[in-house]
Amino acid sequence: MKKSNELNLTSPIQDFLAELHRKCTADNDGDVATYIPELAKADPDWFGVCIVTANGSVYEVGDTRQEFTIQSISKPFVYGLALEDNGRAATLERVGVEPTGDAFNSISLDPGTGRPRNPMINAGAIATAGLIAGKTPASRFKRILETFSLYAGRELTVDKTVYQSESDTGHRNRAIGHMLRNFDKLTGDPAPTTEIYFQQCSISVNCRDLGVMAATLANRGINPLTGKQALRGEYVESVLSVMGTCGMYDYAGEWLYHVGIPAKSGVAGGVLAVLPGQIGIGVFSPRLDAHGNSVRGIRVCKELSRHLDLHLFNRSVVGKFSIRLKFTGADFNSSHVRTFEEGQALRELAKGIHVYQLQGNLMFATTEPVLHDVLEHVDKIQFLILDLKRVLSLNESAGHLFHSLVNKLHAAEKTVIFTHCEHLPLLRRMMKKKLADRFTEQFNTYPNNDLALEWCEETLLENTQYAHAPNFKCKPADYELFKDLTAAELKVVLPLLKPHNFKRGQVIINAGDDAREMFFLARGHASVLLPGEERHRLATFSPGMSFGEMAFLDGAPRSANIVADSEVECDLLAMEDFQALGKTHPEIKIKMFGKLCLNLTGKLRKANRELSVFE
Amino acid sequence: MKKSNELNLTSPIQDFLAELHRKCTADNDGDVATYIPELAKADPDWFGVCIVTANGSVYEVGDTRQEFTIQSISKPFVYGLALEDNGRAATLERVGVEPTGDAFNSISLDPGTGRPRNPMINAGAIATAGLIAGKTPASRFKRILETFSLYAGRELTVDKTVYQSESDTGHRNRAIGHMLRNFDKLTGDPAPTTEIYFQQCSISVNCRDLGVMAATLANRGINPLTGKQALRGEYVESVLSVMGTCGMYDYAGEWLYHVGIPAKSGVAGGVLAVLPGQIGIGVFSPRLDAHGNSVRGIRVCKELSRHLDLHLFNRSVVGKFSIRLKFTGADFNSSHVRTFEEGQALRELAKGIHVYQLQGNLMFATTEPVLHDVLEHVDKIQFLILDLKRVLSLNESAGHLFHSLVNKLHAAEKTVIFTHCEHLPLLRRMMKKKLADRFTEQFNTYPNNDLALEWCEETLLENTQYAHAPNFKCKPADYELFKDLTAAELKVVLPLLKPHNFKRGQVIINAGDDAREMFFLARGHASVLLPGEERHRLATFSPGMSFGEMAFLDGAPRSANIVADSEVECDLLAMEDFQALGKTHPEIKIKMFGKLCLNLTGKLRKANRELSVFE
Repeated sequence: MKKSNELNLTSPIQDFLAELHRKCTADNDGDVATYIPELAKADPDWFGVCIVTANGSVYEVGDTRQEFTIQSISKPFVYGLALEDNGRAATLERVGVEPTGDAFNSISLDPGTGRPRNPMINAGAIATAGLIAGKTPASRFKRILETFSLYAGRELTVDKTVYQSESDTGHRNRAIGHMLRNFDKLTGDPAPTTEIYFQQCSISVNCRDLGVMAATLANRGINPLTGKQALRGEYVESVLSVMGTCGMYDYAGEWLYHVGIPAKSGVAGGVLAVLPGQIGIGVFSPRLDAHGNSVRGIRVCKELSRHLDLHLFNRSVVGKFSIRLKFTGADFNSSHVRTFEEGQALRELAKGIHVYQLQGNLMFATTEPVLHDVLEHVDKIQFLILDLKRVLSLNESAGHLFHSLVNKLHAAEKTVIFTHCEHLPLLRRMMKKKLADRFTEQFNTYPNNDLALEWCEETLLENTQYAHAPNFKCKPADYELFKDLTAAELKVVLPLLKPHNFKRGQVIINAGDDAREMFFLARGHASVLLPGEERHRLATFSPGMSFGEMAFLDGAPRSANIVADSEVECDLLAMEDFQALGKTHPEIKIKMFGKLCLNLTGKLRKANRELSVFE
Repeated sequence: MKKSNELNLTSPIQDFLAELHRKCTADNDGDVATYIPELAKADPDWFGVCIVTANGSVYEVGDTRQEFTIQSISKPFVYGLALEDNGRAATLERVGVEPTGDAFNSISLDPGTGRPRNPMINAGAIATAGLIAGKTPASRFKRILETFSLYAGRELTVDKTVYQSESDTGHRNRAIGHMLRNFDKLTGDPAPTTEIYFQQCSISVNCRDLGVMAATLANRGINPLTGKQALRGEYVESVLSVMGTCGMYDYAGEWLYHVGIPAKSGVAGGVLAVLPGQIGIGVFSPRLDAHGNSVRGIRVCKELSRHLDLHLFNRSVVGKFSIRLKFTGADFNSSHVRTFEEGQALRELAKGIHVYQLQGNLMFATTEPVLHDVLEHVDKIQFLILDLKRVLSLNESAGHLFHSLVNKLHAAEKTVIFTHCEHLPLLRRMMKKKLADRFTEQFNTYPNNDLALEWCEETLLENTQYAHAPNFKCKPADYELFKDLTAAELKVVLPLLKPHNFKRGQVIINAGDDAREMFFLARGHASVLLPGEERHRLATFSPGMSFGEMAFLDGAPRSANIVADSEVECDLLAMEDFQALGKTHPEIKIKMFGKLCLNLTGKLRKANRELSVFE
């Protein structure tokens, strides 16, 4: 792992792996495989360990770039491809999934049907190789090699010498091939399929490849380094299942009990282990035990499982956790700025807007608490906003539950709105299918909470005295900042205002400009947008309000753009005129300052209230 | 499940279960067990389904309160107790963990050692019963019954009629007992242990109990309804491992492949299944298939697994997710209010303060991304604040990684601070042990981020011109609000101020009071605290600042308490006097208003900046 910082600090995880490697190097038990001459040439001291997380962090130590042949570790990957090519049912007809207490090279066919017990023994692996689609043996193997390369994230090749050696000596496997043909578990001439099996076992990999391949299975079939899919997600569970029960030959029960990570070993010294959703492990050390498993490979997996608490069944509770934040529209408003009176009205009305910020992976166990909580508070809920911004994934089970919830709340005359859900296309797809002609009416979405909140607020205000006609024009005498002024004082101030009209979309204030005036909005709406983030609005103003006063007061350059949302009519008050008022009519300036302070105080209270939502 | 809302809305999960129950009721395959007369009396149509989440939500439908005997489902729970009494090694000496292709009542002893292959077959279960500690057979069984009651969350009893029937007919099991004695896998007279086995099988439960017992295993041994521990967390993985590989007799491989949830069935018709960290399932239906498993029980588990995506190996990636939020001290300050100049200085200096809000269950795979990210940015980090408020659990592996990180950053002259970590005592315990005499120096903790940020800020300001002597007293002429006043104007204002001293801890402003004056702080510090939440401070003021002006301006009652953090000297300006200034010396009032607006604008800009951290 490269040190990405200038201080040259290594990761504690790297340190831990190095220490583990050092410790296990002392273990010289076991012998290099000799059943084919090529394997016997391996240096018994080669030793590499590689951990790759499902997010793609790689940690490696030792001989992780030394090439060796993948051997039996090819079996689960070819099985995955067979599932993609044939589906589960047809594959199960040819190869079973029951563990056998027998050794790796046992024939283990079901006495009645001739079906191999599982795809991890040679007989099952050869039957599996027979399931790979392709017009010719060459094209069938080519697909295997390409798939393996996707898993590893680099172009793999066959070690031709080992392949030749396997093919020259593979009479037992040829016998198995013919036996399978005899039971119709292979079709046609078994010889080309046996050759494919020899080739798949002779694919050359290194220890790092094993780590990446394992991490690809941990990451639901997607290589975390390249982002490319090597196996359809739905088949990952099947591949890991056969690894879990049959991956370590006649050692499966103890392996699951002590190590608790589905794994597969190969006779060249490789071990690959997968903790779904978390990490992939690759180990390479050619000395084997009596079961045919790498001695150090087993040792490393055991130590990793113990020290890193990796046991599959040692799981923390996931459910508590999917509701990131909950608040009501009374605690947090849209950025549509309200008058004092509207604000007061909303503090009561908007209690019926309930926002749930969800997070993480939504599946049954993590969605259940959301439904539970919503139903517990449903009497108070008028609008339910489900914010999915931080939801990483959503499966069908969660989709079903959300559909039922939408249905139920709609029947109870409540509105459900989803925000930030574009990255979860499954939700829309399921809703479309399940809601059918009620889709448009019932599946409400907004790109963000702000717009959803605004829509709810507008709906709530619609039936109150605060509803404005869309084209309402505020008279200057009614501007908020002028509210305390007498008729005589108004006569002084109004002539200072310079009207200015803007077209829809026109920029009223440019970020970075000097602040020379403040704006009074007579008609239309204007929004404050962060430069470069046009979809992110900070505030929207309505007729009667003033804006641009902050920079006007503290002399800082304009900090954001203000853009006309519609046709806009403004009155501008120049800074010099406002200054001059202090000399000529101090009582007016004091009254305006009082209103300004009140306005700022209101905004500050609102901001503090909103900040407290995040505590 | 009770409907907790007035609208009487049922949960979609309840609806789904009811529908599943309806569907499976049509399945009348299989026969009630008849090997003892009592079991044959069961109504074959009884059918209950119960789901309990690891968080304790219960969903049940059908005959979930009908009592029946637990039978073989007792085996994993007694095995758990045997592990607690003897540890893993001694237990493994007596009973293995390898699956066997044989049926439930097979003897399956290892030919060499006489060790039963696993604890889920009768031979293994009787050997396990022999491992339960206690002076007399009665006290040994009492411990079993008490443990089962902890799992179920209610006091369970033995069905005496079934027990009698089991005991009267249990010759095969007595034979197994003697065989085990022959191989020294039982000590002493085997008869009392065989009786204990008959009793454990005769414990009476209902379907809901099975759901709760399963959820207790899913929740790391803690009953989610009572909060009581039934099994030490470290043994949960072992119990689930033997269920996973041996729980469904000669159907283990297919079960894991198709259903993927560790399970155990009983001959009275119960099935119990556990998805670790997520949910527990209990099903009861007495009709059995040829394997001795409940037909509807298997069907329900299969349907649940498929519809709710429960397969053990179908896991989403967890790692991406442990960093909830990241920001620097420049984006978000402590609530220690700074002067304009201090604020400017900190906006640069405080970039070295990096706050990581972590969340969820911290284990290897979720802590790795934190370390990875920290090390990637370590060159810019001077202070690292790790906020654990939303961390639900932290295991030893995470503890080791944090210890290494603290060590490493300390050596690089950086400071790590943990906040909100009181609920994770393991962290402190591990740090104490591993840091030893460096513990006090290196393990920095604060109850919250605000205090941690303040400490970092103070440390950063210490070496600048903005450092103040602890007892610094600000002259009234230097008060922020008076900065623009001329000497002549000061002569008008200063006589209006009324000095007032407060003792440390004394309340300066009471929430709810009318606002009649604003305060100028001359010496000491004062903090704004929310009433009822004394540990939560909103702001701390320093000499030269004014406070209490917001309520003073908008006429609202005081919204929070302000308390003296130390001896405090204040100057008070009464509202009437400030009002009067408008008549007598408008230029002064305008200047003060200008400063006030500037002050409010600064605070509003800060609040908006802080709000954007949470976007």
